Amino acid sequence: MSPRRSVAEARQTRADILARGVRLASKEGLEGLTIGRLATELDMSKSGVLGHFGSKEELQLAVVDAAAEIFTREVADKARGFPPGLPTLLAMCKAWVSYLERRVLPGGCFFTAAAAEFDDRPGRVRNAVAGLATVWNRDLYRQTRTAMTDGDLPADTDPDQLIFEINGVMLSLNNALQLHRDNTAPGRARRALGRLLGYPITALTLVLALRTA
Amino acid sequence: MSPRRSVAEARQTRADILARGVRLASKEGLEGLTIGRLATELDMSKSGVLGHFGSKEELQLAVVDAAAEIFTREVADKARGFPPGLPTLLAMCKAWVSYLERRVLPGGCFFTAAAAEFDDRPGRVRNAVAGLATVWNRDLYRQTRTAMTDGDLPADTDPDQLIFEINGVMLSLNNALQLHRDNTAPGRARRALGRLLGYPITALTLVLALRTA
Repeated sequence: MSPRRSVAEARQTRADILARGVRLASKEGLEGLTIGRLATELDMSKSGVLGHFGSKEELQLAVVDAAAEIFTREVADKARGFPPGLPTLLAMCKAWVSYLERRVLPGGCFFTAAAAEFDDRPGRVRNAVAGLATVWNRDLYRQTRTAMTDGDLPADTDPDQLIFEINGVMLSLNNALQLHRDNTAPGRARRALGRLLGYPITALTLVLALRTA
Repeated sequence: MSPRRSVAEARQTRADILARGVRLASKEGLEGLTIGRLATELDMSKSGVLGHFGSKEELQLAVVDAAAEIFTREVADKARGFPPGLPTLLAMCKAWVSYLERRVLPGGCFFTAAAAEFDDRPGRVRNAVAGLATVWNRDLYRQTRTAMTDGDLPADTDPDQLIFEINGVMLSLNNALQLHRDNTAPGRARRALGRLLGYPITALTLVLALRTA
């Protein structure tokens, strides 16, 4: 790397590489994402790309992190600012469906593809993917428990069961959109979630109004 | 291929290659399944393997077919012999959960992995995977409609919605088993399906008894 390049430029290049890497990996998987492939895509030298990451595994881990940042921006952050419990849970689900429906990443849900690819490849990448899924599920769990305490979900709700089924709806939505190009799927996902949560996931204003009544 | 080998031997070798190919592909995906890789695994020559398939794509298509045969044997066939409609639908779901729970293939559901891998790679393999999923969904749809006609499912049931949600439960089960090694997942799948169908999926004898009452 040329010493004349600034730290800012280097950081931008790293960000550019990762942005391209996430998009490619969402379609073709992480294993096929090689340093050489990215170098060609970005019209860089292999040593130029390698200089940012050191190894293919480090590149893959950085791509997983970049995908997590996109999910945080597009889903988790859009559920901020709502009262904890059911309003936040509805907001999380609403943003999650929207994220898949809008096809923010060309290959659909990055983590679904990465999980399918790495669930039988023990190692740091698998741990990162599983760990991030666990963190998100834990957030859903916490909001579910708060909703139960507030009386917005039945007291006999099994939070792990609810999260198992919410994940199922999202996986089915992603599968329907990506494999079958089925554009009725987002509506079906909303309908399923509405039944699971007891409120339409778009009814945030209604829920907030009812709670302050 | 040696002219002294019998047709039967050749067919057995092809079957052996495919059996190994399905197991490997369930863990590592179809793209990584090369003729060279299988040749090494089976202690054969590359030309020996290639002679059975002609090309990598033909090999992949044959592996998809072999995986479909396994699913037919382990799931679809186990739902035969029941009255059409709800009993068959329950039997299909029961066998499907059992298939995933028993980890018949080491990497979990072959079609989930193949769909994630190929949904962005247009071509014959993608068409084959999507086509087989569609055939299975169509079978579920037919049994659902029969169940509705028989009064065993509510008349206002939306069959496509039901199938969307059944698929979600199975995808969540596969994800929980493969990525999180979560052995509570089969029970959660049964609970979710029981709620979707109005009967525990293990209650086939109960359903049959009720129907003949």
